[in-house]
Amino acid sequence: MGYDKTDELCINTIRTLAVDATFQANSGHPGAPMGMAPVAHVLFNKFMTFNPKNPDWVNRDRFVLSNGHGCMLQYALLHLFGYGVSINDLKNFRQVDSITPGHPEAHDTPGVEVTTGPLGQGFGNAVGLAIAQQHTAAVFNKPGFDLITNHTYVFFGDGCAMEGVSSEAASMAGHLQLGNLIAIYDDNHISIDGDTACAFTEDVLKRFEAYGWHTLTVEKGDTDYQGIEEAIRQAKAVTDKPSVIKLRTTIGFGSKLEGTGGVHGNPLKADDAKQVKQKFGFNPDEMFVVPQEVYDRYNKHAAEGAAAEEEWKALFAKYGQEHKDLHTDFARRLTGDLPEGWQTKLPVYKPSDAPVASRKLSEAVLEAIHDTVPELLSGSADLTGSNNTRWKNAVDFQPPSTKLGDWSGRYLRYGVREHAMAAAMNGLAAYGTIIPAAGTFLNFVSYAAGAVRLSALSHRRVIYIATHDSIGLGEDGPTHQPIETLAHFRALPNMMVWRPADGNETSAAYYMALTSKGTPSIIALTRQNLPHLENSTIEGASKGGYVLKEDKDAAITLVSTGSEVSICMETVKFLAEKGVKSRVVSMPCTEIFDAQPKEYKISVIRAGIPALSVEVMSTLGWEKYSHEQFGLNRFGASGPYKQVYEKFEFTPAGIAKRALATIEFYKDVKPLRSPVDRAFQQLI
Amino acid sequence: MGYDKTDELCINTIRTLAVDATFQANSGHPGAPMGMAPVAHVLFNKFMTFNPKNPDWVNRDRFVLSNGHGCMLQYALLHLFGYGVSINDLKNFRQVDSITPGHPEAHDTPGVEVTTGPLGQGFGNAVGLAIAQQHTAAVFNKPGFDLITNHTYVFFGDGCAMEGVSSEAASMAGHLQLGNLIAIYDDNHISIDGDTACAFTEDVLKRFEAYGWHTLTVEKGDTDYQGIEEAIRQAKAVTDKPSVIKLRTTIGFGSKLEGTGGVHGNPLKADDAKQVKQKFGFNPDEMFVVPQEVYDRYNKHAAEGAAAEEEWKALFAKYGQEHKDLHTDFARRLTGDLPEGWQTKLPVYKPSDAPVASRKLSEAVLEAIHDTVPELLSGSADLTGSNNTRWKNAVDFQPPSTKLGDWSGRYLRYGVREHAMAAAMNGLAAYGTIIPAAGTFLNFVSYAAGAVRLSALSHRRVIYIATHDSIGLGEDGPTHQPIETLAHFRALPNMMVWRPADGNETSAAYYMALTSKGTPSIIALTRQNLPHLENSTIEGASKGGYVLKEDKDAAITLVSTGSEVSICMETVKFLAEKGVKSRVVSMPCTEIFDAQPKEYKISVIRAGIPALSVEVMSTLGWEKYSHEQFGLNRFGASGPYKQVYEKFEFTPAGIAKRALATIEFYKDVKPLRSPVDRAFQQLI
Repeated sequence: MGYDKTDELCINTIRTLAVDATFQANSGHPGAPMGMAPVAHVLFNKFMTFNPKNPDWVNRDRFVLSNGHGCMLQYALLHLFGYGVSINDLKNFRQVDSITPGHPEAHDTPGVEVTTGPLGQGFGNAVGLAIAQQHTAAVFNKPGFDLITNHTYVFFGDGCAMEGVSSEAASMAGHLQLGNLIAIYDDNHISIDGDTACAFTEDVLKRFEAYGWHTLTVEKGDTDYQGIEEAIRQAKAVTDKPSVIKLRTTIGFGSKLEGTGGVHGNPLKADDAKQVKQKFGFNPDEMFVVPQEVYDRYNKHAAEGAAAEEEWKALFAKYGQEHKDLHTDFARRLTGDLPEGWQTKLPVYKPSDAPVASRKLSEAVLEAIHDTVPELLSGSADLTGSNNTRWKNAVDFQPPSTKLGDWSGRYLRYGVREHAMAAAMNGLAAYGTIIPAAGTFLNFVSYAAGAVRLSALSHRRVIYIATHDSIGLGEDGPTHQPIETLAHFRALPNMMVWRPADGNETSAAYYMALTSKGTPSIIALTRQNLPHLENSTIEGASKGGYVLKEDKDAAITLVSTGSEVSICMETVKFLAEKGVKSRVVSMPCTEIFDAQPKEYKISVIRAGIPALSVEVMSTLGWEKYSHEQFGLNRFGASGPYKQVYEKFEFTPAGIAKRALATIEFYKDVKPLRSPVDRAFQQLI
Repeated sequence: MGYDKTDELCINTIRTLAVDATFQANSGHPGAPMGMAPVAHVLFNKFMTFNPKNPDWVNRDRFVLSNGHGCMLQYALLHLFGYGVSINDLKNFRQVDSITPGHPEAHDTPGVEVTTGPLGQGFGNAVGLAIAQQHTAAVFNKPGFDLITNHTYVFFGDGCAMEGVSSEAASMAGHLQLGNLIAIYDDNHISIDGDTACAFTEDVLKRFEAYGWHTLTVEKGDTDYQGIEEAIRQAKAVTDKPSVIKLRTTIGFGSKLEGTGGVHGNPLKADDAKQVKQKFGFNPDEMFVVPQEVYDRYNKHAAEGAAAEEEWKALFAKYGQEHKDLHTDFARRLTGDLPEGWQTKLPVYKPSDAPVASRKLSEAVLEAIHDTVPELLSGSADLTGSNNTRWKNAVDFQPPSTKLGDWSGRYLRYGVREHAMAAAMNGLAAYGTIIPAAGTFLNFVSYAAGAVRLSALSHRRVIYIATHDSIGLGEDGPTHQPIETLAHFRALPNMMVWRPADGNETSAAYYMALTSKGTPSIIALTRQNLPHLENSTIEGASKGGYVLKEDKDAAITLVSTGSEVSICMETVKFLAEKGVKSRVVSMPCTEIFDAQPKEYKISVIRAGIPALSVEVMSTLGWEKYSHEQFGLNRFGASGPYKQVYEKFEFTPAGIAKRALATIEFYKDVKPLRSPVDRAFQQLI
């Protein structure tokens, strides 16, 4: 207890590092780091346990900077504690190929747990990290073996608090009674437009109370270190509710512009930077100065963290003796590998099996593998019965007091909160012991676009089970029928978009989704029944695209996905009756197909004959895999799905008409190259 | 006052119509209409003024069914009051080409104000409608001329309440003190996953109090008509806060499954439908029955509404004598036409003008036209200084008590609430007197995707000012640099995506955005400076794509947008030095280009030589306009923008390298068609 001059020096070192890095970059946000340096110093030194030499230690306390624009705060801390962030990395803040980009990226910087900056996301990630901790503890902790005891701390500002994703996540966390989650609200009254009085005048703490949170206030967040410590201590003591601490701070504390928008998103002017350093007792003419006593203080805490990890390792080894199977499971999960042979559980189908909707095929996968893949947590945004995301004997993840489930439960009721669901899944995946999968309608994955993007950017193994994937959902109509959605996510780097055509392809989608450690997946699934196709295989589909129906004399290739593949198979017969031979390629995942060798790709989409793509939504992007495209570049229609398909001519006759026009159009072109045969390689 | 048997009969008629329509369609949601029939009956008959014969009367009260899945409630009301919705339309509920689709669509059904169903959207639309009313009243009402006095009523359920977009919108409405907004929360404790206890246990009214709302509760929403009336009356009496009435109802009231999830999203079984009718005194063997006294009651209220409109017309005529200019302006706005000659205000540039960022060019447009186009309301999601959305002498739209602006203000501080901003803009545009435009970073338009989609589906003239449109934003890095965003919105039907290359093209984007009455626009704008280009014109750019640099001997066409067009112009010189002639097409809006005659399109992207597209983001979709594509199918990088461009080779040398590879690759292909020359027409 008690704070001395070294604490003051530590806090001011963080502030001056933020001033210097943003000044040197001539870019960035000094205000938040200067305002939040005190709480960061107190939190990291008095409460958090972590080992900078092993940022992956599973029982470390998690820290999330949801107001990620203040990342110089985090980079400064990582440097001071001895993570793999050097003073040169700080000098290269916001420079090309540095590990200190403009906003924190988990994939790039040791010690950054999750990728933040897009406002509100970190808050949702933190809820996911807290759920993961509760669940992992419930599964693995045993008497005498409190393996998992960590807390999740999240800083957020007014921007995060205004975003809907954080509201959704906060409501969810309140319902789930996540006592291991402590949020610190940087109540600095400033956002980019200036004083929050101009747009944000709600009572934030009252709102959090309404969600079921424990709330506290620290009035003098700039100077009352003891008060900050006491508040965090009280927050930790409340274990049946998440806590939020409202901390009144001065943005840009120390600057001549402190407390104004002028210090939010712009570096300090040279003279201001100097006066800040003078005020804090630093040499105004030096930059990036870290006094040795600051390093000493932080190294000491880092050493305590390293020792804690050693203790934990000993405990875990002993655990291995008493709980062998759990130990094996836990150790395996931390590698990211799945249990050996798990894939033999994946359902395999024959053409004679009864037609079934791919959302049901997805359910069959979950039913078949959930015992073997215990790290899989499923859930839905209040569409459980429609998404078919719940295996029969699933237990809900719920606070035991609700009597609706328990902490070991593997089924999450996310509520109608798609965006927070996705952000929480990013946190769940980041924790290290869980593979999250959850459902909504494909059309409403768009509500979560901000978080889905970060699944991809931060290399998270997250599975989006996206049912009702087209006009095939029928009566719900245009408001619910995706047109642009697959194009959207196909354009997103490092995202696998799957649209399986039948049972084997659905198994393939899960196979790839579960074994791709650094890539999220969206699996688009039908509401309507689909037949199982001749020649469909898990192996073929796992290449992203493959020949389903070959004919060496074909005059055209039909390239299709999902529910339209079987219609294309019918079209082959329809065309044959007119004396035209055709072949069919099923392309359940273009991203995976893109990654195949060029030879293979050209064997699938052949040169010499034209290819026609068939998919009941936007044609955008299909030009890459076909010479002509049949799709739906307009909104859909409300009605029984077969009638909707007929209205838009997605029938053998409708496809054949376009196939014949395509054959005719390309008959004179020599050489007719495969569309996947390109002049140069794309940058990746 | 007082409710009689006819009221009861009216309410039960609504219920049985909902039962019959969903039963006949074998699809739909009977539960919400059955539960909310009482409040709908009271609200429409006792409080709302409207003329079914003229659904566009500007001073009508607005009704929004945010829980749009309960649309049979709305369709039944529209029918009973005599809007253009016949009993046959009810019988065709959820059938192809009916005007009674699965969720309410404003563009299709007379009397439906906004398109709802995607949860939370209607709530945000209602906030926009209420803002529009306040603003329009402030501009046009004069002593003795209360032209605009309407209220906005919105129904919402648990699903809407869980969505982040409604939280954002509610916080905004509380800040704005929208006393003309009354929300009715259908607290039926049921969502699709069953009891709300499993995911939604917050105190909703306390949350709304925290936002600054006036809150009320009606415990017996199924039967206490008088209590409902009293609550709405109290809500109307509070004029400095929006009101929310929590109404405890029984979902599927009357059904054997009332109060359960079983009646939420599925029609009643045949026997249940019969017992409901028996219970309500209807013949169990008849369907779609409307007793004459119900029509009589509703027709009477409709006639009162028609009379009210007549009175209003007389008042408006008199207003024309006393306030001629305002009258002219108001009358013109209602036609959707802009003031004659407004377009002469659009800035025009010469190549010798200084380079400037297109976000600043956008600001120059707003500065130039805001006086002439008074219906234009601008705003930003807390990025005013970055989006450059505010003209110099703009007044904020704020409650006068804040002393930060007034109701006549034309600049909205939306806060960091992109999704609610977009949903509110859909409401603003729906009101009929306003053209809303507002800014955020292009990357965060994705946060608003759910609402942006509905701008397009419901044909709203909404303008998204999307700055920081690429890796050209530089230091903020990959979390903020759009890659997939333009592909996403280009795939969305009825959406114009603009990426102007310079000043004239920016003016063209606004010209088209403002004159397209039924199509929203996203205008993607740079942070970095751009030169004004030789041959760029408003007229050319208004065709979506045009030849900027012609050369009849060219070996290749470079097709580009925005900030890359000037680099392509440099590339022409670079290639010329190597003896290769090239031409440049600027394609600021592919959607508009698509709509040009085929001849024109082929004159722009010529046959006989290959085309290479150049855009610093996903190449997805560019295959439609080019033979080869140079783009960025990976995430960007944090650093000074010129270095980021160099890293990814978006330089004359990098483009030329790919241009040469393209020329070489296609030299043998005969005939080399223009990529816009297609085998068949797409459905639209």
